[in-house]
Amino acid sequence: MTARYLIAPDPENAGLTRAVSGLDQSGRSVDLKVVEERPLTIFLNAREIVTAMTIGDYPEYLALGFLKNQGMLHPEDEITSVEYAPEIDTIVVRTRVETDYEDKLRKKTRTSGCAVGTVFGDMLDGLQGLRLPETPVRTSALYKLASEINQTPSLYLAAGAIHGTVLCQADRPLVYMEDVGRHNAVDKIAGWMLTEQASPDDKILYTTGRLTSEMVIKTALMGIPVLASRSGFTAWGVEIAREVGLTLIGRMRGKRFVCLSGEARLIWDADPGTLPEEATRHRRKGAGDD
Amino acid sequence: MTARYLIAPDPENAGLTRAVSGLDQSGRSVDLKVVEERPLTIFLNAREIVTAMTIGDYPEYLALGFLKNQGMLHPEDEITSVEYAPEIDTIVVRTRVETDYEDKLRKKTRTSGCAVGTVFGDMLDGLQGLRLPETPVRTSALYKLASEINQTPSLYLAAGAIHGTVLCQADRPLVYMEDVGRHNAVDKIAGWMLTEQASPDDKILYTTGRLTSEMVIKTALMGIPVLASRSGFTAWGVEIAREVGLTLIGRMRGKRFVCLSGEARLIWDADPGTLPEEATRHRRKGAGDD
Repeated sequence: MTARYLIAPDPENAGLTRAVSGLDQSGRSVDLKVVEERPLTIFLNAREIVTAMTIGDYPEYLALGFLKNQGMLHPEDEITSVEYAPEIDTIVVRTRVETDYEDKLRKKTRTSGCAVGTVFGDMLDGLQGLRLPETPVRTSALYKLASEINQTPSLYLAAGAIHGTVLCQADRPLVYMEDVGRHNAVDKIAGWMLTEQASPDDKILYTTGRLTSEMVIKTALMGIPVLASRSGFTAWGVEIAREVGLTLIGRMRGKRFVCLSGEARLIWDADPGTLPEEATRHRRKGAGDD
Repeated sequence: MTARYLIAPDPENAGLTRAVSGLDQSGRSVDLKVVEERPLTIFLNAREIVTAMTIGDYPEYLALGFLKNQGMLHPEDEITSVEYAPEIDTIVVRTRVETDYEDKLRKKTRTSGCAVGTVFGDMLDGLQGLRLPETPVRTSALYKLASEINQTPSLYLAAGAIHGTVLCQADRPLVYMEDVGRHNAVDKIAGWMLTEQASPDDKILYTTGRLTSEMVIKTALMGIPVLASRSGFTAWGVEIAREVGLTLIGRMRGKRFVCLSGEARLIWDADPGTLPEEATRHRRKGAGDD
């Protein structure tokens, strides 16, 4: 099942889950596996940027992808090192010269004391003039991806309470990242793409999470033209997707889906009438909500 | 159904959802309701603190609850006004004198330029020496709450892609808040409690989201001794709940649940054998994931 992946989940990695004992509804003792959640403080050169709550795998990809998706790292920034110090839950991304973001942060700090509020504005600014490629997407490929991803052994299936995001190419899932943190899984994919210099033009991003403004902005900033999810939409997510011409597909379960933006990329080569409804055992239960 | 609530969801409020047209899996035109998502920038006196993404209801409760749950507002801080300016998506909470947090922020800014990284540490510091009351909880009350909340008309049922958190007292749901933002629903409840001077001692918090470290810390800082969810756990969430003696119940669906901390508060007065499994129509579908 995982043979086609470049990176697949590793539910057997003992560092990512913990066995915990408790009581079930009858008062009987039960043992269960729960996912780890650890702080990771990300520095850009000498600047402390954020403390993310993460499951803990691929910290280098997470740090790089976070900085890139927040508009803090640009293509012209030459990355000289990424140093992970697990004993102090810290990772430092260094660039050859100070980034524009650090420069802006210093100016901002002088006037108002903190630059947190600028981040979302910076992300939106990055969308100005963005053109996403007109790569066609077969609906048969979307169904195949959703089915294969749902059946791939994962931390979600082993322990729940975690989100998954998968970078795909046509009908092939390539890189499947999971994380407890809201957007960490997609940031880890961005970090992998940056490291591997992978082209976004022919890619599809599949996520288990909701299609919020932040998710849509991140996908567009990564240059990926198609975002699909089992979950639902927010109005602003739809609005931004339409503005940048991103194909947005949600509520994808079994034979069902809804496309609310960028429908011109779709090639309708699957007959939903021949597909089954989603089997109960493949539903993502509430354990993965949130 | 909503008669017992002090505040119930208002799915008919036209400002909270938007009608959007798209295509379904057969290429047929469909209209659906999606939830709104708006930025709200929160100021504490002259300090810009954060821009939250919110559905937009109860901005005053959200701002107050956020500041309190982040450890930025303390009981000794006298709140003089809360001014919401919808035309610029901004809300300002003013106190009679400058808060400790602003003072700390100014010192921190002088040295490292930004105080973002301190916030989580401040939240953890707030747990030192915390004692939660030993209020007993009947398992029959938990089942009754879960069933009543699942059947309450809500934005989730109308449009999906949203989280709910409900403040309860014994078997009665009191205040049911929903929001697109990860922790906004619980912050709105904290803001309501602060405004109404509601005692946390005899309360139960029910959430549709996962039991992460942040959710557990917020509940404990609010002084509420019991946190229950349909969703799953993270290891750190369980660890913190055990340290502060909070009753933590997860994976609560139909007759099932798991208690991983604070089981001494439970009174096992329900016979799960007589309860049905959760009906498919009451499952929270993926639309509410994330």
